[in-house]
Amino acid sequence: MDMTVERIGTTGGGARPRGAARAEGRGVRPRGVRGHVVRDPELAEARRRSILLAAAVLFGEKGYEAATLDDIAQAVGITKGGIYHYFLSKEDIFYEIRVTAIKDALTRLEDILAQGHPPAEALRLAVSDLVSHVLDSPLERHANVLRTPPSLGRRKRQAIRQLQRRYEAAIQHLIAQGVERGELVARDAKLAAFTLLRSALGVATWYREGGPWSRDLIVAQVTDQIMEGLVRR
Amino acid sequence: MDMTVERIGTTGGGARPRGAARAEGRGVRPRGVRGHVVRDPELAEARRRSILLAAAVLFGEKGYEAATLDDIAQAVGITKGGIYHYFLSKEDIFYEIRVTAIKDALTRLEDILAQGHPPAEALRLAVSDLVSHVLDSPLERHANVLRTPPSLGRRKRQAIRQLQRRYEAAIQHLIAQGVERGELVARDAKLAAFTLLRSALGVATWYREGGPWSRDLIVAQVTDQIMEGLVRR
Repeated sequence: MDMTVERIGTTGGGARPRGAARAEGRGVRPRGVRGHVVRDPELAEARRRSILLAAAVLFGEKGYEAATLDDIAQAVGITKGGIYHYFLSKEDIFYEIRVTAIKDALTRLEDILAQGHPPAEALRLAVSDLVSHVLDSPLERHANVLRTPPSLGRRKRQAIRQLQRRYEAAIQHLIAQGVERGELVARDAKLAAFTLLRSALGVATWYREGGPWSRDLIVAQVTDQIMEGLVRR
Repeated sequence: MDMTVERIGTTGGGARPRGAARAEGRGVRPRGVRGHVVRDPELAEARRRSILLAAAVLFGEKGYEAATLDDIAQAVGITKGGIYHYFLSKEDIFYEIRVTAIKDALTRLEDILAQGHPPAEALRLAVSDLVSHVLDSPLERHANVLRTPPSLGRRKRQAIRQLQRRYEAAIQHLIAQGVERGELVARDAKLAAFTLLRSALGVATWYREGGPWSRDLIVAQVTDQIMEGLVRR
């Protein structure tokens, strides 16, 4: 997965794969965050994600500073020790929430780009993908409404920002290509990319499961509304 | 100002005018939050706003829970007692940040509606107004990136939400009118209003003074991008 993501954007670097993900690539037994052997990587990943989701919801509800590791453990129904099996600290959990969500989105964007559509069509698929996953993935939805806390530490904040920039740069590139080919209209592709992404991810701020609209109506209308804003008439 | 705002939307109620604003309407000498006579209402309002802005910046930087009244007093260059002259508590400051920003925006929207433009044109002016003020008013910009802390108390949270709903309802109404008259396209006017507002206010999440784009380019392009997404072809 990380190999795939590396191909997007030009800034390079970004967050490094960790724990199980890193070990998998080398063909050795995966190791956890504390160096222990992970016997069932799939189960470990599912537990890891359930902790991330519970924490993302809590950070959104109570605020990052106010939410404690005890709150998170209680929400997942495990002990604080159980959390330390997967994460080093609350800071580490916040970091992994954001990195996991952005990497997931980058992987999917890479898949769309690999399909070789014209830029406007690839952009439409990317927008639709983002909106869909905000609706379908609670982790992505809750991760997207969190602001990075300043107490997070400079290295982690920069790593998150760098991953975000890779996503933004890929969207900006699609828009610029679309403008060049006369499919799209935008005076400044980067500004257009920012506006597009805030519209698509903004769904996370108001969407509630069981709300008045079907998932498919939201995906279709938000995607249309965003794309019509850029398509040449 | 509160009279003007009352004319928008149908939900009624909302935040009540307070302190100086309430007294002004009755033709008596304005009184502050602690019942004292305000000698210079204009100066008092300027000081009140400087506290709100400093607090909004701090809440954004440190998080609401982590920021203290001492931090805010230090940022404004006054004593904590100086803050208590204008606000009852940190909670009260957060509440006033949001209410002041939304009421300012509602007052301007009312002015636009009073000009009697066709719906699509009124909507374009409203979008341009929102984006402009996110750029021109630091209070509006910083207020717009804050999430209401759950510790705020139910009544205050509901009052903020109700003011927001009045703004959303007015935009939704403009879109619905535009669709009816064949000027605009939207399957669901409320969903379109949410998407439009997230795009316009989303500028607050990335805008930095002294950035690469002129104010006028941002206002023009974001407004065009949002409006083109709804205008009938």
